[in-house]
Amino acid sequence: MVTRKEVAELARVSEATVSRVFNGVGPMKEETKQRVLEAAKKLNYHPNAIAQSFARRRSGNLGVVLPYVPKVHLFSTYFFAEILSGIGSKVREKGYDLLLMFRSPEDESEYTDIFLSQKVDACIILGAGDTPREREQLKKLEEGGHSFCLVNQHFAGEQFNEVDADHTGGSYRAVQYLLGKGYRRIAFLNGSPEFSSSGDRWHGYKLAMEEAGIDSSEYQRWYYEGNYSRTSGYRAAAQMAGRIGELDAVFSANDRMAIGLMQGLREHGLEAGRDFAVIGCDNSDAARVTDPPLSSVAVPFYEMGSAAAERLLEQLGGAQGGFQLKMDTELVVRQSCSKRQ
Amino acid sequence: MVTRKEVAELARVSEATVSRVFNGVGPMKEETKQRVLEAAKKLNYHPNAIAQSFARRRSGNLGVVLPYVPKVHLFSTYFFAEILSGIGSKVREKGYDLLLMFRSPEDESEYTDIFLSQKVDACIILGAGDTPREREQLKKLEEGGHSFCLVNQHFAGEQFNEVDADHTGGSYRAVQYLLGKGYRRIAFLNGSPEFSSSGDRWHGYKLAMEEAGIDSSEYQRWYYEGNYSRTSGYRAAAQMAGRIGELDAVFSANDRMAIGLMQGLREHGLEAGRDFAVIGCDNSDAARVTDPPLSSVAVPFYEMGSAAAERLLEQLGGAQGGFQLKMDTELVVRQSCSKRQ
Repeated sequence: MVTRKEVAELARVSEATVSRVFNGVGPMKEETKQRVLEAAKKLNYHPNAIAQSFARRRSGNLGVVLPYVPKVHLFSTYFFAEILSGIGSKVREKGYDLLLMFRSPEDESEYTDIFLSQKVDACIILGAGDTPREREQLKKLEEGGHSFCLVNQHFAGEQFNEVDADHTGGSYRAVQYLLGKGYRRIAFLNGSPEFSSSGDRWHGYKLAMEEAGIDSSEYQRWYYEGNYSRTSGYRAAAQMAGRIGELDAVFSANDRMAIGLMQGLREHGLEAGRDFAVIGCDNSDAARVTDPPLSSVAVPFYEMGSAAAERLLEQLGGAQGGFQLKMDTELVVRQSCSKRQ
Repeated sequence: MVTRKEVAELARVSEATVSRVFNGVGPMKEETKQRVLEAAKKLNYHPNAIAQSFARRRSGNLGVVLPYVPKVHLFSTYFFAEILSGIGSKVREKGYDLLLMFRSPEDESEYTDIFLSQKVDACIILGAGDTPREREQLKKLEEGGHSFCLVNQHFAGEQFNEVDADHTGGSYRAVQYLLGKGYRRIAFLNGSPEFSSSGDRWHGYKLAMEEAGIDSSEYQRWYYEGNYSRTSGYRAAAQMAGRIGELDAVFSANDRMAIGLMQGLREHGLEAGRDFAVIGCDNSDAARVTDPPLSSVAVPFYEMGSAAAERLLEQLGGAQGGFQLKMDTELVVRQSCSKRQ
């Protein structure tokens, strides 16, 4: 079969340009377009059905809804930066542009409005939490027949398109690792409960603890909650400091909180990797460069973003059926998860 | 004068919703719109001329052109993440959406094509370098009367809209600081020369060195060049290692290269803050958490992005004249810029 690459080479253009010609996306110099069509004819190239049906699309934009929080440097958070990088690389490959829409909880507009404007053909929703209003809006999108996908968020009982990660398994293995080192008094620092990943991680923690014969009456006393920010981890340190003698380790639902916690406990003279063990989640860049380097559950956010964009665009192209993907997580062990007994 | 905030409160909507009503941006529930218009009438609110002329805009999108580099997690680099966060917060405030367009050097399309598609009203170009093709394309944009702005890039001899930082002054002060500690043998690790910030930093370095009576025949031997990636800093370490006995300090044109350099020299048994001093540029998050923490020239990328978006949207709204802003930089001193003599 003749490939897009061969057409690109003969026409002396990039593969993305070949895609744009066949997808009818964006403006294009007539001369370039003709050169591509001639090369395709010469090589007897037929783009596949998905590519052809792209030509029926309207805007050529994939939308991404992002939560708007004043003063938060959204793109500088590992979670959003990685998912957006994955989405961006896939839309570029498919000849699409990316329309970012910022939304705050108090906005009057509904998700369906996004499609009324015809500015996007499909939409990825990031940072959605499980609240009644969110569910209602997503159901309206579904009833309207709009293409959308959630990333890193699951709605139990619904069949929305989603790309999630195995947060339960990741947490289970992290806590199991700590238990395997002989630590039994393991605190859990969770993030905001409206996100399904928070519930999943709590579930994974409980599974491991109970398997080790630790009773819920015991471990529930070691439950702390932040909001996934560094500051909230720092605040948790103040609560935890007085009880640190009781505790061997802390499992934190993300790296930012773990880093804030390490900083906070250091101010009480307590060092991670010496006075207590700590494991975070995300395996962000920051985890590699903290002192001591932070053990963390790696979540493939880049791949999740890329997969969400790919599946959504396939759906636009006529692929049948919804999709629910769950990607693997992996424990990365560094110096922070030891404790000198 | 009645403010947007008062209208929002009376109509029980967000300020962004009030903006959207008066700017005619995006879809809107009729009921919400009426409530806002009634509140505005009751309070005798008149949006300013800029806001009103927004209503004449076409797409409601501000475009951002981003360089596409396969496999690079673009949003995870401090530079792009911060500028985009600044742009994003401003467009949200003004009721706009953000259209991201990925572009690689081999793309056939021209900047003017972006406006042909009518998908954006104005455009911010990130990651542009000073090459003949780039200049030609930007001049075409200018001749076409399109609104665009460059961030962190200056084109000598042109009057393009731009928001830049005082990289010369920042470098001058960083090198002066090292000289003030008695270090005279200071290497300069520069980034890719097509970016004006590279030239500016080299200029600032030279000013400080010559002011201290160090001759160019001497300091030119200490010039190294990477491409702003961590890996290129790591590679420079191998070149520098054999001569480190000659050198007191290294000034690096960004933090990523400085961090790669520190890692590379550590493999030769040489520790920053002990065997040599080092200062980076950007003051990225990573600078705070390296071991030792990295001194760095802070560049206000977030504010630069925000200012670029604001000025461009004002221009769309009828503001006269172009703009060339240059923002201040600031040396942040941490442990990496000492050397035990």
